[in-house]
Amino acid sequence: MERRDFLKKTGVATAAAVAGSALSAPAVLAEKKYRWKMVTTWPPNLPVLQTGAVRFSKRVEQATNGRIKIQVFAGGELVPPLGVFDAVSDGTVECGSGASYYWAGKVPAGQWFSSVPFGLNPQGINAWFYSGGGLKLWEEVYAPFNIIPRPQGNTGVQMGGWYRKEMNTIEDFKGLKMRIPGLGGKVVARAGGTVVLLPGGEIFTSLERGVIDATEWVGPMHDLRMGFYKAAPYYYYPGWHETGTCLEVIFNKKAYESLPKDLQTILDAVATETNLWSLSEFEAGNGAALQELIIRHKVNLVRFPEPLLNDMRKLAKEVLEEEAAKDPLSGKVHAAFKKFREQIGVWGSVSEKPYYDAIADTYALKGS
Amino acid sequence: MERRDFLKKTGVATAAAVAGSALSAPAVLAEKKYRWKMVTTWPPNLPVLQTGAVRFSKRVEQATNGRIKIQVFAGGELVPPLGVFDAVSDGTVECGSGASYYWAGKVPAGQWFSSVPFGLNPQGINAWFYSGGGLKLWEEVYAPFNIIPRPQGNTGVQMGGWYRKEMNTIEDFKGLKMRIPGLGGKVVARAGGTVVLLPGGEIFTSLERGVIDATEWVGPMHDLRMGFYKAAPYYYYPGWHETGTCLEVIFNKKAYESLPKDLQTILDAVATETNLWSLSEFEAGNGAALQELIIRHKVNLVRFPEPLLNDMRKLAKEVLEEEAAKDPLSGKVHAAFKKFREQIGVWGSVSEKPYYDAIADTYALKGS
Repeated sequence: MERRDFLKKTGVATAAAVAGSALSAPAVLAEKKYRWKMVTTWPPNLPVLQTGAVRFSKRVEQATNGRIKIQVFAGGELVPPLGVFDAVSDGTVECGSGASYYWAGKVPAGQWFSSVPFGLNPQGINAWFYSGGGLKLWEEVYAPFNIIPRPQGNTGVQMGGWYRKEMNTIEDFKGLKMRIPGLGGKVVARAGGTVVLLPGGEIFTSLERGVIDATEWVGPMHDLRMGFYKAAPYYYYPGWHETGTCLEVIFNKKAYESLPKDLQTILDAVATETNLWSLSEFEAGNGAALQELIIRHKVNLVRFPEPLLNDMRKLAKEVLEEEAAKDPLSGKVHAAFKKFREQIGVWGSVSEKPYYDAIADTYALKGS
Repeated sequence: MERRDFLKKTGVATAAAVAGSALSAPAVLAEKKYRWKMVTTWPPNLPVLQTGAVRFSKRVEQATNGRIKIQVFAGGELVPPLGVFDAVSDGTVECGSGASYYWAGKVPAGQWFSSVPFGLNPQGINAWFYSGGGLKLWEEVYAPFNIIPRPQGNTGVQMGGWYRKEMNTIEDFKGLKMRIPGLGGKVVARAGGTVVLLPGGEIFTSLERGVIDATEWVGPMHDLRMGFYKAAPYYYYPGWHETGTCLEVIFNKKAYESLPKDLQTILDAVATETNLWSLSEFEAGNGAALQELIIRHKVNLVRFPEPLLNDMRKLAKEVLEEEAAKDPLSGKVHAAFKKFREQIGVWGSVSEKPYYDAIADTYALKGS
């Protein structure tokens, strides 16, 4: 008998032996061990995204005193990055980490739960999830796939991307070859650009050689790591296409529901903890990386002109309405999203916006 | 023998009886029950603040399968609201809920961890806590009092308050009798105002009768509930004095450290979960309440003029520097706070600020 089997069988016998003792039945059941696998869409060690999934796993293990252990596999280690949703759906693994817009082809109504162009920022999308019915709606959208979603991270407002030429008006998108996925890509295409899809590892070289004219990635922390400042001279902001992208942890429904209520609660609480930790890491890390890009690498930060943003926003609205019209569930989610934006929109204009206005003179970029 | 004593002694006997059995020691220890008390600074049922403390307790009970049960007492039910810190410090109770600026007289260096005028917003202060060393510093500040702090909520950017007259320049603060506590009050006093401290229950009548000329409270959700719109015609924004006030849960060090590591992790995770839930409730609730104030009660929302805010900001800086100079620990916290603001300041000006600018035309108040 292998040592592992021996321990396992002894464990079972022990539990059985005390079942009739003074310890209550739940106390014994509570000791059942869960050994899960998580697959992610992220490359190994990708800061905050992959390391956030690993952190989630560690915190769950700590909080459950080892009753749940989740082995985390980066994209491609067990299933391909874009195979995560299916692997969780069919029960190949118990959970996964990614973002809902990766599954747009299969679950179009899911797109609103990661990020839509000119959409909600992190504070807004979290308020929608936790206090505005958003998470309940997300559960409804994933239910046919036997998947239960939870927000697990947020990138914050992203950057607009790296460009080999200046972007002065919406006309400058005509003929522009840009690496930009998702709904943002649809808006760029509508403005006359050519959307190019490239694996992460090929973007830098393509940009440097002029195979593409522009790329977006995440924010300063991740963009610095990719070295894009060596390949394109203009770093535009803000990231109108991803204004606070939510990352997800997804659970196979059967696996999640097989857990006792206390362990379900721990998974939920640690997911929310990781969500806020992730945003905090992005904020602190982006702040430091932006300083490095400006001071050390003399990067040319440029704000998209207001008329360009206004024009892109009109196109974004058209794209969203078209997506919403494609199926009833997308229409339902879009309507709920818009309604919640209305609820908090004016409040943002009298709270967060004037807060940023009030401190703007101190923190504005020179010359902007 | 009282039933309660009987149960208690039986519980002990049971644990002792199985300690030598085949169950491993940690498995038995894990079943130890903790029955704790939490005292808060909040009135009973105060939305998000007191209900957030109660929610924290319920989530902890769920996540621990009843191993920790925390009985929550509102302000005055067990100890006076401002007696919370001492009660946790001396071990009268195991935990409490409040905000660090309530203890400014005893722990001046603690003030930076709730809110300082023209300070960090919720996203910024959370980034400081979780990813910029802020929480570690907070632990250091509370350590001499045998208290371990955790962020447990955030009000978001508050409103500037209700005024019986228009506020056009900083001169209008001269002679103004205003209910405004903490550092914000010190700034108003420096501008020539008279700061009045009043219990919550006396503010409305004092404002209505002109005993005071102005008051701040929280945000639209709580202000609507207090009925201030019936007592003063001008509702000013933004709340420069509290730009994202952090609420705390505080643990008696000995009680916290007596817990096994898994239960400590659960307390921490649920505190962070409650932190984000609280901000989300404030955002969603303030959005809805602001609409009601504007549409139903025709409240006159007014933005503080920019020169007035700039002048107040200069005074706020003086007040903060003075507070920081009072003791070495305050100086240390102030320096760390400023350093972190520098780290994320420019990043905010290229991410969140232009996000709000880009959507401003849709959500701006009419006429503003």
